[in-house]
Amino acid sequence: MMAITIHGPRDIRWERVPDPELQRPTDAIVRVLRSCVCGSDLWRYRGLAPLRSPGGTIGHECIGEVVEVGDEVHDFEVGDVVIVPFNHCDGTCVHCRAGVPAACVNLSVTQSGQGELARVGQADGTLVRIGNRRELPPEDLMPSLLALSDVLPTGWHAAVSAGVIPGATVVVVGDGAVGLGGVIASAALGAKRVIALSGHADRQALAREFGATDIVASRGAEAEAEVLELTEGIGADAVLECVGTSQAMATAFVVARPGSTVGFVGVPNGVDEFPIRAAFSRNVGLAGGMAPVRKYLPTILPLVLDRTIDPGRIFDMTLPMPDAAEGYRAMDERRSIKPMLIPA
Amino acid sequence: MMAITIHGPRDIRWERVPDPELQRPTDAIVRVLRSCVCGSDLWRYRGLAPLRSPGGTIGHECIGEVVEVGDEVHDFEVGDVVIVPFNHCDGTCVHCRAGVPAACVNLSVTQSGQGELARVGQADGTLVRIGNRRELPPEDLMPSLLALSDVLPTGWHAAVSAGVIPGATVVVVGDGAVGLGGVIASAALGAKRVIALSGHADRQALAREFGATDIVASRGAEAEAEVLELTEGIGADAVLECVGTSQAMATAFVVARPGSTVGFVGVPNGVDEFPIRAAFSRNVGLAGGMAPVRKYLPTILPLVLDRTIDPGRIFDMTLPMPDAAEGYRAMDERRSIKPMLIPA
Repeated sequence: MMAITIHGPRDIRWERVPDPELQRPTDAIVRVLRSCVCGSDLWRYRGLAPLRSPGGTIGHECIGEVVEVGDEVHDFEVGDVVIVPFNHCDGTCVHCRAGVPAACVNLSVTQSGQGELARVGQADGTLVRIGNRRELPPEDLMPSLLALSDVLPTGWHAAVSAGVIPGATVVVVGDGAVGLGGVIASAALGAKRVIALSGHADRQALAREFGATDIVASRGAEAEAEVLELTEGIGADAVLECVGTSQAMATAFVVARPGSTVGFVGVPNGVDEFPIRAAFSRNVGLAGGMAPVRKYLPTILPLVLDRTIDPGRIFDMTLPMPDAAEGYRAMDERRSIKPMLIPA
Repeated sequence: MMAITIHGPRDIRWERVPDPELQRPTDAIVRVLRSCVCGSDLWRYRGLAPLRSPGGTIGHECIGEVVEVGDEVHDFEVGDVVIVPFNHCDGTCVHCRAGVPAACVNLSVTQSGQGELARVGQADGTLVRIGNRRELPPEDLMPSLLALSDVLPTGWHAAVSAGVIPGATVVVVGDGAVGLGGVIASAALGAKRVIALSGHADRQALAREFGATDIVASRGAEAEAEVLELTEGIGADAVLECVGTSQAMATAFVVARPGSTVGFVGVPNGVDEFPIRAAFSRNVGLAGGMAPVRKYLPTILPLVLDRTIDPGRIFDMTLPMPDAAEGYRAMDERRSIKPMLIPA
């Protein structure tokens, strides 16, 4: 098949690679219908995270059509159109049953989401059907459905982990796609006030459309002071840390009210200093981690299907998959929030 | 008055200092009846935490008799015998009302608990009456009542923050006085299994008396492997980190089951590396901090008074207050779990 590969920092190529194959009888193979670039892909693109297999495929977000299933896949068949949660889980192990499928004992992650085909482990526990070959989902919903494979459930996980409840005042640190997903989630979970930290006019506008009630455009200590002023010196009831850097984490712990929780979902490649003393003296907790995508889909999917939320608007650039390198560049330079890729 | 002072690392003296005075009309002065040395005092004793005023008093845990009250103290009078929560709170501010008195806007901390007299800020919000000059608490309960000024509520906070519920499997990292308090709390909160990490026979015995069901005597990776084996590879439902070092924190995040929470209460002087990647990949949260002592006393005090729990057993050494230096030495060398001091 043809797929996007990464050979080194800023070296993204479209080239022929071996087709993914069924490895276990619980696997399925999907033909990718929509894909996109994730903020976490950028860590490797920028050379800030190790590249374990140079020349390997990349991309873990996609929706697709099932083209092959293993002998032990019972709930899906060839032709089903599905959301592919980026982390694959069996749905039956001790951790899945405890509501933490991101720690499934059979965990795997989509490896060639930015390719023509991708293997999905534990297909029965992982996939969610949204149509079939003869009855595709409405074209205008495809971006929002794609957003359910990672980015929106990840923002949702930040909000749930931070304990967002109806009436809460929430701060979202980070105006990338996950942060914007956190704004959608906070509003959907009933937050009365959603304060988004963003210095970019286009992202501010989108945050407002998604439900942000206040925008703080400054950064660091200045932003922290502004949030505290907006919250009468008390701090926010819940804070979503959607960046994954030391500065973002430090800001999160300063603007959180004592006794509250910082929900974090940014892959912590950039967190080398954790504000443990602020956590201690202010009794601010930390919760979150890799999102249990599959767990949230029964809650979120209906909101997309009935058009209550429109997370697909996060995609502000659409490219043919072979041109993904331009998507990486645009995202790296913050010219794009999140590029969607369509197989050629 | 006479009081214990600290002049530098390992330089503990008994000497004359100015009497504490009422500074605000909400203050009270207590004559100390029982005091003790805290693990957090040792950070300064060992020179690992800065000494802000060399020659100053030290000690923040005590019970005492009220000898003077400010004009705005309405609920206590001279002669009352009281527990003095180490952190003083007004009970009425936005954070107190939200259940986080450790972040009270009028927060102060006992400064001369290892002295003849101590000032208490926000006396009405802080103190808890346990008798009066004519009717002292039973002598045999005095150690347990002293333990309510910090150490047991701190262990309790670790357990509550970690989410200990009836039937839970709990791991307690740390066999100091706070860790042992965490064992008491976990058992009292209904844990089915309490695994205490301790390499000292005397502390193991005490942990068992307090309700520990399993003891893991090894440390580091070996201890982690043992706990995982004891929990069938799943990890504990709740973990109490009662040390405050990087190694203890790392162990806590390894033995916690995915989706659970590490309750931490050790003053984090020794935590310079936080296991953020383990937290992320395993969805293990962190909660806790400085204990809201006053908040827990209505729950814990009755258990002491009816002799359901006996946290006073943590004091395995009793010294006249002037000999406190020996108590510091014994605790530093781990010859004593926690020394009680009785004014001469």
